[in-house]
Amino acid sequence: MLRSLLNQTSLTVAGIMSGTSLDGIDVALVRIDGCGVDAKVEVLHFESFAYEDELREKLKELCSIEHSDVSLLCGMNFAIAERFADAVLRAAAAANISLEQIDLISSHGQTVWHIPVADEANPFLPKSTLQIGDLSVLAKRTGRPVVGDFRTADMAVGGQGAPLAPYGDFILFRHEEKGRILQNIGGIGNCTAIPASASTDAHRLIAFDTGPGNMIMDQVVFELSQGRLTYDANGSWASIGFVDVELLNSMLADPYFKLPPPKTTGRELFGKAYASSFLATALERGLPPEDIVATATSFTAHSIARAYNDFVFPEYNIAEVIVSGGGAHNQTLLGMLRELLPEQSILTSDELGLSGDAKEAVLFALLGNDWIHGVPNNLPSATGAERPTIMGKLALP
Amino acid sequence: MLRSLLNQTSLTVAGIMSGTSLDGIDVALVRIDGCGVDAKVEVLHFESFAYEDELREKLKELCSIEHSDVSLLCGMNFAIAERFADAVLRAAAAANISLEQIDLISSHGQTVWHIPVADEANPFLPKSTLQIGDLSVLAKRTGRPVVGDFRTADMAVGGQGAPLAPYGDFILFRHEEKGRILQNIGGIGNCTAIPASASTDAHRLIAFDTGPGNMIMDQVVFELSQGRLTYDANGSWASIGFVDVELLNSMLADPYFKLPPPKTTGRELFGKAYASSFLATALERGLPPEDIVATATSFTAHSIARAYNDFVFPEYNIAEVIVSGGGAHNQTLLGMLRELLPEQSILTSDELGLSGDAKEAVLFALLGNDWIHGVPNNLPSATGAERPTIMGKLALP
Repeated sequence: MLRSLLNQTSLTVAGIMSGTSLDGIDVALVRIDGCGVDAKVEVLHFESFAYEDELREKLKELCSIEHSDVSLLCGMNFAIAERFADAVLRAAAAANISLEQIDLISSHGQTVWHIPVADEANPFLPKSTLQIGDLSVLAKRTGRPVVGDFRTADMAVGGQGAPLAPYGDFILFRHEEKGRILQNIGGIGNCTAIPASASTDAHRLIAFDTGPGNMIMDQVVFELSQGRLTYDANGSWASIGFVDVELLNSMLADPYFKLPPPKTTGRELFGKAYASSFLATALERGLPPEDIVATATSFTAHSIARAYNDFVFPEYNIAEVIVSGGGAHNQTLLGMLRELLPEQSILTSDELGLSGDAKEAVLFALLGNDWIHGVPNNLPSATGAERPTIMGKLALP
Repeated sequence: MLRSLLNQTSLTVAGIMSGTSLDGIDVALVRIDGCGVDAKVEVLHFESFAYEDELREKLKELCSIEHSDVSLLCGMNFAIAERFADAVLRAAAAANISLEQIDLISSHGQTVWHIPVADEANPFLPKSTLQIGDLSVLAKRTGRPVVGDFRTADMAVGGQGAPLAPYGDFILFRHEEKGRILQNIGGIGNCTAIPASASTDAHRLIAFDTGPGNMIMDQVVFELSQGRLTYDANGSWASIGFVDVELLNSMLADPYFKLPPPKTTGRELFGKAYASSFLATALERGLPPEDIVATATSFTAHSIARAYNDFVFPEYNIAEVIVSGGGAHNQTLLGMLRELLPEQSILTSDELGLSGDAKEAVLFALLGNDWIHGVPNNLPSATGAERPTIMGKLALP
């Protein structure tokens, strides 16, 4: 069976992604012709399945040193794989695709821990990462071969195991004549800059975290609305406010923005604590809620534009910025980006025909497809790995 | 590379085993012709590498609900894989075999948890098992393809994920004319009965835990020697004692021995608590140390012989009992077995040309070899699985 799979040049792949936000499971059913950076992708179906609250709470326990233990990890590794299997079965049914038509499942797994830098004081805490959702359970339950658990391989050759997204960005969005930046605005903002006619030279990418994404905006909206709103839908609240430029500039003075790429950041810098401190300062300054939300929104927009001006535009001509992630639905944020980047077209990945939400699940389909074709699927220029290598493990049904 | 591997009919495989006793890492370098139950095995080299004390202590923390956490598991999954890689490199060097000559590494992994029966009250603790030692880290570090992490697949098709040893016993020891029992005497005793001319019908095996192995003897010797001895070397201490038959019979009345196979037992029944209680009773009865050790040894011997009489001999004619594990070095125990089983030859697996210590590492080499050949490598008659299936996952270098 494996032998015939290896001989197929075109595969129908179910890509599965579960993010660190613990929202749930994304499944993309895609048809892929070829492999590596020349793969051609057609998205047949995309669907998200939210984790039920009880499971999400249990995952949160598992993702904490205080509440996790080896027994829970043993059990959840199986329980999560069963959910992945359910999600594939339901997505296939919704797409009217039989399981037999799916040649391969490719699963990122659920990240439960990540040690980006070795603990020098403890030899048992080396640089490492842990994604759960057992591949054999998923394979036996669906009856399909499964590739997955990619990040450890990149780390084993010296990489950070992240970001993996630039590889998919390159395959899906590179353009012969236009330099493009793929800007994801999730909790954190991160971008991949692809020069025009990069063709197969993925090493010319510049990829890094731009800084805050939605996390500060969302937290501020949550607190200002006394918990009624979890985000500023469409950017409506920010649209009626004024930006406090002095406050904005003080935030843009953060040393993170001056660091040259590659660089990554997270909740520990631009998270809840940052948002609370920003909110306290803004209230002290007597700003009304709409100005506070506008200023937070402007902070994300400016940090992105400044990152391009400092680190991307000096290297490459960029014609288009393609926004994905939750921030792509924030019209005020997009409007600010348009003002700050007058020479670039600001588009959403949906406008280019690929749902921004689906992008990551499609990426993992591509990574699994590469495994089958024996093609290295990490991007050392993005992850810092010493060499290209084949990430992932294969389990048979 | 994978393609050419799949086309080889004869493979040099490094089998790696790390037992639940946390002793260390066993590596068997073997040449395998063919696959499945007809595989022919030649052991080229066998070597054991003890875990250093600090690592063993850390593993013990990881194997406990109280001391484990997700961070330690993330780190140790990588740290243990590095040790596996070291062990393969050192074994290959000692055998004067280059890494390039090793076609495949096949790794059991280090078991850190096992949930044999689902916790009905907690949906997040299904029947499951957890072996660590990341396959990609092992593959990238050695530059060889790695198959491993077998047990989850058997569990995913309804099995217990254990015992896996009977499959290797069948391949290595089945005989056209002689019915054989493979008796392993580790902490616990377990046997595989193979009728004569079972040929390729592995489903005719009877495999189960006979009961106590060395655990009670070892603990009693440890306590009677005030910690100077960890086991009764060669059975010398037991050899000068007399068996207290009344005490022996009271122990043989344990309901476990009446249970029909398949059945498994462990530390929770015949472990430290059992040994302490036995020792207290024996001292109350005024037995001298040598009689206590002799009685404990006799308990293991009788429980084995009784198991054969009750559950194996009614089904199959058995000509030979082949003993492996630490107990195979206990001459007093072997002598007792010879008295209790006068119609069978009692041999050690070393006498048949295969080191008893190496047996498990060789088994895992066989399981990985089967994966490459696309052959199911679980044994439903031993594990209780619903069907034969291919266990294991493949990581590429």
